[in-house]
Amino acid sequence: MRFGILGAGGYVGGALKSYCERQGIPFVVLGRDSTTSPQHVAQAIETHRVDYLISCAGYTGKPNVDACELHKTDCLHGNAVLPGVLRQGCEAADISWGHVSSGCIYTGRRSDGDGFTEADPPNFSFRQNNCSFYSGTKALGEEVLAGASKCYVWRLRIPFEALPNPRNYLQKVMSYDSLLDAENSLSDLHQFAAACVDSFRLGIPYGFYNLTNPGSVTTREVVELIKQAGVIEKEFRFFQDEDDFMRKAAKTPRSNCVLDSSKALGAGLKLTPIREAIADCLMRWGKA
Amino acid sequence: MRFGILGAGGYVGGALKSYCERQGIPFVVLGRDSTTSPQHVAQAIETHRVDYLISCAGYTGKPNVDACELHKTDCLHGNAVLPGVLRQGCEAADISWGHVSSGCIYTGRRSDGDGFTEADPPNFSFRQNNCSFYSGTKALGEEVLAGASKCYVWRLRIPFEALPNPRNYLQKVMSYDSLLDAENSLSDLHQFAAACVDSFRLGIPYGFYNLTNPGSVTTREVVELIKQAGVIEKEFRFFQDEDDFMRKAAKTPRSNCVLDSSKALGAGLKLTPIREAIADCLMRWGKA
Repeated sequence: MRFGILGAGGYVGGALKSYCERQGIPFVVLGRDSTTSPQHVAQAIETHRVDYLISCAGYTGKPNVDACELHKTDCLHGNAVLPGVLRQGCEAADISWGHVSSGCIYTGRRSDGDGFTEADPPNFSFRQNNCSFYSGTKALGEEVLAGASKCYVWRLRIPFEALPNPRNYLQKVMSYDSLLDAENSLSDLHQFAAACVDSFRLGIPYGFYNLTNPGSVTTREVVELIKQAGVIEKEFRFFQDEDDFMRKAAKTPRSNCVLDSSKALGAGLKLTPIREAIADCLMRWGKA
Repeated sequence: MRFGILGAGGYVGGALKSYCERQGIPFVVLGRDSTTSPQHVAQAIETHRVDYLISCAGYTGKPNVDACELHKTDCLHGNAVLPGVLRQGCEAADISWGHVSSGCIYTGRRSDGDGFTEADPPNFSFRQNNCSFYSGTKALGEEVLAGASKCYVWRLRIPFEALPNPRNYLQKVMSYDSLLDAENSLSDLHQFAAACVDSFRLGIPYGFYNLTNPGSVTTREVVELIKQAGVIEKEFRFFQDEDDFMRKAAKTPRSNCVLDSSKALGAGLKLTPIREAIADCLMRWGKA
């Protein structure tokens, strides 16, 4: 069984690639030239004898989501059009595949206080007119994949791991001058990568999955875990509130949200409780 | 001065092409392969020595806008991503260009009873969550072009002309089994094509223009004009109301709206009052 990985040069794709390497899972990295059209996708699947395709390709702004406001075309193409091109290519080739989506299409909690499930429509999207351009395009990408056959849509949310990386949430919390205290569900990057592969291995039902570690944490709780682990000596500073943060540090609204990952857990995917997962990464900080 | 025309195989592009032919205006038709990337666009502009580019390319559902709900990827690409690719290519080549947009990103009239001007934000778009997928992508395309340099955005709205064509509004009114009575601003297709070319010839300020014939008409008024012209003998039937229409004939909401074209008129573009323009086409019905 051979995986085809798209977007392997990115943060999530790199984690998936290294997970496959460690597990001895055969895979081939597919380049951007494989995604020009559905025909190119189907051709690449055939040429490289891909059994399952995983797309970690997408457009995230660098250094952060504010950059997407300036690169709307690439953002729309990478996050909303590309998933549709892959869908058409994979449906033509009749293979199972998965798309890395994002939990950033929600804000807050459900009105009943619970986390959002896969059955809740996005509430941080163009359709609510309250979002960043990035979140808007990610939600459109999910609309494009609604009803896709043999397709997993895995929602990642603020990835973290034990290794320092500018994209690693734990490193961000340690390095930012000031922090916004907000409650979020998060994804252990390596558990996320394993869950993507396991979706196929276990043959769980196709569809949408929130792949976040069970529970949620506030930024202040993450800071406490960092202090307890003794990873860094510094005084952590916080913005007064979201208005202060928006005024001083951000150009476009951020999603902060709590997701319910019980569908993924019920299907047999392994995601450990969020505080445990963070503490574990901090204990191993700097080691893979 | 040589024009490059994109989308010349479509209804609007065909009209633009025939206008240029009749006027002896030099032009070259650019194919879809010119639009793969901004680099391809800039290259095509150089290779074909294009002074002004006009893009009539876009994705409209066939036979109508309902089809866009089933072809979301192509619709997003053609209407929202492609304008951004062209913008980048034309900005790199530093030429003036224009994009055919649509008035279908509005519904109704302004709250003060007037038609919508270019300063009014779209009110029939993803951001209002009240629109067809088609209108949503057209409004996103305008967001992508906000602040573009040396760029015209021309809003077409329900094109009509003297020649029978399945896309011609007058033919639609004559051929549909039942009609929805609604008030709209409309665009005389050939006046629209002339106004696009005249934008460059007159050197009017870059930016957004509603290119609709001044005023508005209801479907019943158009039927009366058709009867007066004696073009067809038939009994015209109407849906009871919009609910009846949506239930029996449509899968996705339609835009019906009144636009204000005084900015275009003030700039010197020629658009005759809507009833005159319709009556003139009906008088010449079947002749170019």
